[in-house]
Amino acid sequence: MDKAEHSGKLFIISGPSGAGKGTICQRLVEESKVEISVSMTTRNPRPGEIDGKSYYFTEREDFLTEIEKGGFLEYAEVYGNFYGTPREKVIEKLSNGVDVVLEIDIQGALKVKEAYPNGIFIFILPPSMAELRKRITGRGSETEEAINLRLSQTLKEVSYIDKYDYCVVNGDLEEAVARVKAIVMAEHSRVSQSIYKLIEKYKEEV
Amino acid sequence: MDKAEHSGKLFIISGPSGAGKGTICQRLVEESKVEISVSMTTRNPRPGEIDGKSYYFTEREDFLTEIEKGGFLEYAEVYGNFYGTPREKVIEKLSNGVDVVLEIDIQGALKVKEAYPNGIFIFILPPSMAELRKRITGRGSETEEAINLRLSQTLKEVSYIDKYDYCVVNGDLEEAVARVKAIVMAEHSRVSQSIYKLIEKYKEEV
Repeated sequence: MDKAEHSGKLFIISGPSGAGKGTICQRLVEESKVEISVSMTTRNPRPGEIDGKSYYFTEREDFLTEIEKGGFLEYAEVYGNFYGTPREKVIEKLSNGVDVVLEIDIQGALKVKEAYPNGIFIFILPPSMAELRKRITGRGSETEEAINLRLSQTLKEVSYIDKYDYCVVNGDLEEAVARVKAIVMAEHSRVSQSIYKLIEKYKEEV
Repeated sequence: MDKAEHSGKLFIISGPSGAGKGTICQRLVEESKVEISVSMTTRNPRPGEIDGKSYYFTEREDFLTEIEKGGFLEYAEVYGNFYGTPREKVIEKLSNGVDVVLEIDIQGALKVKEAYPNGIFIFILPPSMAELRKRITGRGSETEEAINLRLSQTLKEVSYIDKYDYCVVNGDLEEAVARVKAIVMAEHSRVSQSIYKLIEKYKEEV
């Protein structure tokens, strides 16, 4: 548990596949002063991927050592490769006053919540299941059966929404991006430690 | 206590005199879909003031009856006149899905918090006591002694900030207005009853 209040904030952007969390994260990084959390992975780099930017590429053995040291806010094994969010890298940014955004599926987000309850958890929702079906079908890579499985999986995932602070329906992308940016701005106006410092300064002035 | 969750939200904009809460409220009403809460008063209308718009003007006797019926979210007597926030008028707007903004001093805000804990409480702060002194002095209506009294009063008031959800430092007005607008937008993205309705709709679709 990391209870220290850092000056930067951790925003977890999560939601079912197809809700558009990736696009929203990208826009947020481009348009707000937030930095994306880079994951660590044991899989091999693909052409064009840059170490430290796309991922931190690492050996399986080192990854397992990091797990034992509690070095990840969350990690998962997918098709034999490990992926994780390196705790130290995130904390370092937050300590330097940098906001960090983490794009992650619902399972991962729930783990991050245990490791870093001070995070701000945002659930991205599709406007409807019909629209989600359309988006997944549009990618053209899945069978009807696989799509149906995905949709019922989504229904299960959505039931975790009460673990989140905010939810943003991504029907219109611009609207959704504006909402997420507003959440980032509003969270910086929360009554917090930093405001007590300002009040101390007031007292010196009177 | 009003525990019902209304679709509109009540934003309480409060802070010491001179912090600029009035200007911020006015801008919010002009630029966002929020309506100002109109106070009820027993004082006589001044030239140009419109009943139901500037204030609801009422007789002292009727005001006292309203107090007994619990008809105010808060009220106060100032220089022999009563001023109050009519509960029914506010609840009616909220029930119709209209956001309501209430500009009020700190004492009043604390009373509103008891009567309507679901409200969103925003504290407007001056950037410094030096700046606050300058603003009050600029109005030219108060003696040095009165100003000093006001400033030490402000220090006391500021200690109630932990009863608030948000605080916005009003150094640059545009920045402060943008922050308050972001808070309004973000609060509408909170995980709430309305999102569960959307999820119910998903279920019907799958």
